[in-house]
Amino acid sequence: MASKDTTQPTQAIVAHPLATENDTPGANWQFENILVPTKPKDGELLISMLASGICHSDLTLTSGGHFKLPRVAGHEGAGYIKALGPNLTNKNLKERDPVLLSFRYCGQCVNCKKGLPSSCDAFVMNLVGQDDAFVSENGKEGINGSFFGQSSFAGLSVVQESCVIPAKDLIENEEELKLFSPLGCGYQTGAGAVLNIAKPGKEQSIMVAGLGGVGLAAIMAAKIAGCHEIIGIDRIASRVKLCEEVGATKGIDTSASADLTKTLKEPANGGRGPDFFIDTTGAPAVLEAAYHALAPRGTLIFIGASMDPKAGWSVDYRVVMKDAKKLVGCVEGDSNPVKFIPQLVKYYREGRFPIDKLTKYYKAADFKTALHDMHAGDAVKVVLEW
Amino acid sequence: MASKDTTQPTQAIVAHPLATENDTPGANWQFENILVPTKPKDGELLISMLASGICHSDLTLTSGGHFKLPRVAGHEGAGYIKALGPNLTNKNLKERDPVLLSFRYCGQCVNCKKGLPSSCDAFVMNLVGQDDAFVSENGKEGINGSFFGQSSFAGLSVVQESCVIPAKDLIENEEELKLFSPLGCGYQTGAGAVLNIAKPGKEQSIMVAGLGGVGLAAIMAAKIAGCHEIIGIDRIASRVKLCEEVGATKGIDTSASADLTKTLKEPANGGRGPDFFIDTTGAPAVLEAAYHALAPRGTLIFIGASMDPKAGWSVDYRVVMKDAKKLVGCVEGDSNPVKFIPQLVKYYREGRFPIDKLTKYYKAADFKTALHDMHAGDAVKVVLEW
Repeated sequence: MASKDTTQPTQAIVAHPLATENDTPGANWQFENILVPTKPKDGELLISMLASGICHSDLTLTSGGHFKLPRVAGHEGAGYIKALGPNLTNKNLKERDPVLLSFRYCGQCVNCKKGLPSSCDAFVMNLVGQDDAFVSENGKEGINGSFFGQSSFAGLSVVQESCVIPAKDLIENEEELKLFSPLGCGYQTGAGAVLNIAKPGKEQSIMVAGLGGVGLAAIMAAKIAGCHEIIGIDRIASRVKLCEEVGATKGIDTSASADLTKTLKEPANGGRGPDFFIDTTGAPAVLEAAYHALAPRGTLIFIGASMDPKAGWSVDYRVVMKDAKKLVGCVEGDSNPVKFIPQLVKYYREGRFPIDKLTKYYKAADFKTALHDMHAGDAVKVVLEW
Repeated sequence: MASKDTTQPTQAIVAHPLATENDTPGANWQFENILVPTKPKDGELLISMLASGICHSDLTLTSGGHFKLPRVAGHEGAGYIKALGPNLTNKNLKERDPVLLSFRYCGQCVNCKKGLPSSCDAFVMNLVGQDDAFVSENGKEGINGSFFGQSSFAGLSVVQESCVIPAKDLIENEEELKLFSPLGCGYQTGAGAVLNIAKPGKEQSIMVAGLGGVGLAAIMAAKIAGCHEIIGIDRIASRVKLCEEVGATKGIDTSASADLTKTLKEPANGGRGPDFFIDTTGAPAVLEAAYHALAPRGTLIFIGASMDPKAGWSVDYRVVMKDAKKLVGCVEGDSNPVKFIPQLVKYYREGRFPIDKLTKYYKAADFKTALHDMHAGDAVKVVLEW
C-alpha cells in the first residue's frame, strides 16, 4: 500500500474504532507514528502543522458508527506550506508561507459560485473525509484523512487548497498563528452566527447558550454589533464569569433552573425574551425552552447539534407562527473564510475579539490532558502544538 | 341589558354554541335579527356593512370551546361610515366615507410603534373579541363582537378605528369596494408573505401550498416579485388550473402523491427543491414534507394553522441546521394594512393582482350556500353582500 519513495513519517492523533459503544469520546484517540504522502496531488498542499484547536465535532465525528475509522480528525489547523501540488488556483502560494485552515468546498456549485461556501452542495465531504489519505507505520492499514479537507491532528498533512487561508499578511509572529488556528471553525462559527446571520440592531437583545469557544465568539461579536443586551448562559460557573469579561452584559448559570423557559425569557428585553437566541448546545431541553422564550419576532439560530440519533426535537409550529418567530440553521457561521477570517483578525487587533482570553495550549502528545481540561470546564479553547 | 334608546336593529350571522363537538364548522351559524349600539364610543365607528369575505378563520374561531359564543365573526369587511365615535385619531374620517376593514392593533406597544401592527402585543384581542358588543333581538342575551375589531358579518357593526382603512381614494365604484373587502385579511396575508417576508429574487423558486384566496394571492405576489419559477400545489384540480391563470409557472395536483417530499422537491430548481415554501394549509403532512423538500438555504413560511390541539408537528432541527434552512412564522403577511392595501390596489389596477378572478358574491342570507361552495372547491373567495 505504501512505499518509502512516496510516503514519509509523521506523528498524528489517530481515532480508532471504539472498543465499546459506551466509551468516552476521545478514549479511542491514540498518538502514533504514521505515514503521509510526500507529494501532494492536483489541488493539494502538504502542510507542516504548527497548531490545531480541538472542537467538539472532532469528538462527535470520531465516535460511533457514522464515519470510517481509523481516521485523523482536526479541523482548526495552522501551519506552513511544505510542498505545493500541481494545478493550484492561487498562484501566490509559496513554500514556507504560513496558512490558516478552514473547511473544504467544491467551488463549482450554485452556492459556492455565490460566495457561500458553507452551503456547498458537497459540504458533507468535510465530515466524510477521504480513505487512505494516511497509512499506518507498518504500511499495512489505510487511515482516513482530509477531515474538513485538512486532518490537522498530524504533524504533516495533505490539505485541499479550498481550506487554505493565506496568513502571511494576517500574523505578526508565530504565536499569533497558533492563536488564530480556531478561527477556521469555532470562532468564525460563533462570530458569523451573529455578524452574518443575526445582524442584530443596537437596540436588540441577544442570548447565547453554551459558552465554549463558539458561544464566547458569539458574545464578542454581539458586542461588536453593539447590542445593548448580551446574555450568556451555561451550566459551568467559570464560563458564566468569563462571558462577562469578553462582552456579555449578563451571565446566567442555568444549572439550578427549575423552569428553563422562564429563566431564559425573564432577563431579556425586560421580560419579553431575547430577540436572538444563539444555541451552541444542541441540547433538546435548551432548544425547547428557547423557542418559547424568544420575544415576538425573535430568531433562534441553531449551531449545535446532538449526534444522538434519538435527539429529535418537537416544535409546535403554531408558537412560531403566531408570534412571527424564526428558526434558522447555521453552518460555519455562514462564513466565507477567506474574507471573514481577516475581518476577525482586524477585530482582534482592535481589542474587540479577545480570543487570547479563551485559549490554552498543550503539546499534541498531551492531548488527553487537553481533553480532560476541556470536559472539566478548566479550558475553553484548547489548542494542540505540533 | 339593552334599551331602544341606545340600540338599533340589524341582521347578522350569529355563531351559537355547537350542538355537538362533531358539528360541521358553520353548522352553528344562523342569520338573525339582533341589536347593535346606536352610538359608537371612544375610538369606535358605526359601520354600515356593504360586503364581507369569509375566511377559514371565521370557521375555526367559532368552532369548539376556545372562544366565547354566541359571537358575530367576519373580518374582511367593507362598508360606509354611519356614525363616528368621539376621540378618533384620524380627523379626516367623515360619515358616508367608504372604508375597508382589517385587523385591530393597540398602537402603543413596541411593535406597533415600529409600524409592525401584525405583531401587536395585544393581537390576541382580534381573536377574543369583546363581550356584549351586540344584544339578542329580545334584549336578553349579550353577543360577542369586535371580532378582529370589526365583526363584519352584520349589516351594522361597531368597529375599532385601528381596523379602518379609508377607501375613498382607493375605489372607483361600489363594486370595487366589495371586491376589495378580502384585502384586509386573506389577500394581504398571502401577498405579504411573499412581498414582506420572503422578498424573493428573480432567480428564485417559490412554491405555494393550498390555493385558496391566501395561496393564490401569494402566487400573484410571486409573479409581481418576478420569480422565475412559481409552483402552486393543491388537492383540488380546479384550483391547480386557476393558479396557472393568475401567475404560477406550474400547478401540481398532489391528491395522488405517494411520496409528498419527492413531489415537492423534484419540480423545483431542477430537483434541488424550492427556495421558498409558503404553507397556507397548516396540514402536518404538508409541513413535514416541505421542510425536507426545501433547497439548501430555503425558507418555509408558516401561514396556515390547524386548530386541532393534537396537530403538533415534529421537526428534526438537524435538517434545518445542516442545510442552513429557515422556518418563519407569518401573521397577516407582516402587513401594515394602511400602507400595504393601497399598494395591492395599485397592483390590481395594473392587472398584476387579478383578485376578480377568484371572487364569487352571495347575499349574506345565503351564507350556507357560500360555505358549501367554498368547501366543495366551487368558489375560491366567497364574499357576502349586506
